[in-house]
Amino acid sequence: MKIQPLSDRVVVQAQDADEQTASGLFIPDTAKEKPQRGTVLAVGPGRVENGTKIDMTVKEGDTVLYGKYSGTEVSLDNEDFIIMRESDILGIIQ
Amino acid sequence: MKIQPLSDRVVVQAQDADEQTASGLFIPDTAKEKPQRGTVLAVGPGRVENGTKIDMTVKEGDTVLYGKYSGTEVSLDNEDFIIMRESDILGIIQ
Amino acid sequence: MKIQPLSDRVVVQAQDADEQTASGLFIPDTAKEKPQRGTVLAVGPGRVENGTKIDMTVKEGDTVLYGKYSGTEVSLDNEDFIIMRESDILGIIQ
Amino acid sequence: MKIQPLSDRVVVQAQDADEQTASGLFIPDTAKEKPQRGTVLAVGPGRVENGTKIDMTVKEGDTVLYGKYSGTEVSLDNEDFIIMRESDILGIIQ
Amino acid sequence: MKIQPLSDRVVVQAQDADEQTASGLFIPDTAKEKPQRGTVLAVGPGRVENGTKIDMTVKEGDTVLYGKYSGTEVSLDNEDFIIMRESDILGIIQ
Amino acid sequence: MKIQPLSDRVVVQAQDADEQTASGLFIPDTAKEKPQRGTVLAVGPGRVENGTKIDMTVKEGDTVLYGKYSGTEVSLDNEDFIIMRESDILGIIQ
Amino acid sequence: MKIQPLSDRVVVQAQDADEQTASGLFIPDTAKEKPQRGTVLAVGPGRVENGTKIDMTVKEGDTVLYGKYSGTEVSLDNEDFIIMRESDILGIIQ
Repeated sequence: MKIQPLSDRVVVQAQDADEQTASGLFIPDTAKEKPQRGTVLAVGPGRVENGTKIDMTVKEGDTVLYGKYSGTEVSLDNEDFIIMRESDILGIIQ
Repeated sequence: MKIQPLSDRVVVQAQDADEQTASGLFIPDTAKEKPQRGTVLAVGPGRVENGTKIDMTVKEGDTVLYGKYSGTEVSLDNEDFIIMRESDILGIIQ
Repeated sequence: MKIQPLSDRVVVQAQDADEQTASGLFIPDTAKEKPQRGTVLAVGPGRVENGTKIDMTVKEGDTVLYGKYSGTEVSLDNEDFIIMRESDILGIIQ
Repeated sequence: MKIQPLSDRVVVQAQDADEQTASGLFIPDTAKEKPQRGTVLAVGPGRVENGTKIDMTVKEGDTVLYGKYSGTEVSLDNEDFIIMRESDILGIIQ
Repeated sequence: MKIQPLSDRVVVQAQDADEQTASGLFIPDTAKEKPQRGTVLAVGPGRVENGTKIDMTVKEGDTVLYGKYSGTEVSLDNEDFIIMRESDILGIIQ
Repeated sequence: MKIQPLSDRVVVQAQDADEQTASGLFIPDTAKEKPQRGTVLAVGPGRVENGTKIDMTVKEGDTVLYGKYSGTEVSLDNEDFIIMRESDILGIIQ
Repeated sequence: MKIQPLSDRVVVQAQDADEQTASGLFIPDTAKEKPQRGTVLAVGPGRVENGTKIDMTVKEGDTVLYGKYSGTEVSLDNEDFIIMRESDILGIIQ
């Protein structure tokens, strides 16, 4: 079973916090939006602006940074995903 | 009796919660918007932006994910439906 | 005496609640916006967007669904009407 | 002394409440925006959108419906007027 | 010393309240935005929208109506002026 | 050391209050936004709107009026500057 | 490990406060947004507006001024970065 996101949405599987700390991600300032890291599982076709398709930048398999409160959590077949808009993604970790 | 949605609206019949849990949908975080699943019963012609028709992506029969508070509930001939905009639909379950 | 609505506005005569329940409309969830049903009596010429006229979808005689708090109630010659924008209309009942 | 409204503004002389009730206008629901009726005394040249002039629909002498709190009341030579945007006008009574 | 307003701004010298009442301006409803009258002293070149210059409608010497809380009061060489956008001007008194 | 402002931003050196009062600037109404006067030290290249560069109106050396709470104060090499958008500048004093 | 920012985002490494004070940056007014200084480490490809790519102005190695609460702090491999949009950058220090 697979989710095909609409428009410029992306399905992301979050990496858990321990994994993130182990790999060096640390959020020092609690007053700021807390970013998180995850793996892109599915990518929408892109949104349409004034009749022009805006292509997506991220692709399946990318490791991305995003804000903690971005998107909507869904759970399918006992796995958790987050569906967010590409504009919620801050950057790709290379 | 049938509802023809206007613009980019979609008529969705929600799957009830038990059915959703049985099929694996589980919402772990109550602080987040709770997504739901439903079946698309009718699709509008698409909205017009700057004189250009924006085609719809979802079609009748699609199983879709959407936020719990999306759209407006209506009941016709003793059946309940939700009328929402396509932009409220997060993805299609394949 | 007749009202010619401006822009993309529509004059609707609401069907009363009993008539709606008798014909099957039932609003189960009070926390949601309550939709209502009515008959379209007059339709504006459509709004202009960037110099392009956007045609209206609904027409006189259509039975339409709309939110309870949509538009403005007016009363003329002892009859009550609601003037709303077409974007407040959720769908047409066929 | 005469007011030439700017852009898409309209100068309206309100009909008083008694006159409105006598001619059949009645506002049954106090929780809703209360519409009123008036006569158009002067009409602006229309607003400009992306370099294109949008023509006005109403004209001098029209009887129009508008929301009670629309526009700005002015008084000149001991007469009261309301200056509102055409988008505040709901319809023309024919 | 002279102020050259930027964009679609206008420098207006307010007529004082007595002058206004004497000439017939009277604001009957305190719950509404109170309009005022003034003389245009300087006019900006007009704003640019999508690369197109939008010409100004008012000109030096015009007597204009505007809302009481429109614009910013400045005082130069012991005289008070108001700098407002042309969109804050309701109409020209002829 | 010099600041090159981005987009349609302007670096302004405020004239102090005494200098302003001495030269005739006086703000009579504390309920209104308090304007201030300064000298333009650096000007950005202009912002881009829909692919079109919008040229700047102010230039180095201009004396400008702006709202008291406009922009961001910065201090470099023991001198204070304000970086604001050109749209925050009300007018040029000639 | 490197972050490739999306759209018009920029990865900035903040200069610490002592370094800033030593080099002359001083923020006198606590009621105003506090600007900060940093070094640009990575620059996104630019955002797309109506199908047109808007090029970035800042480049790797630039020293930039930005508001204290701009962007999102991330930490990777025990180093702290801020990911912000270019529009949050006030100017480049030359």
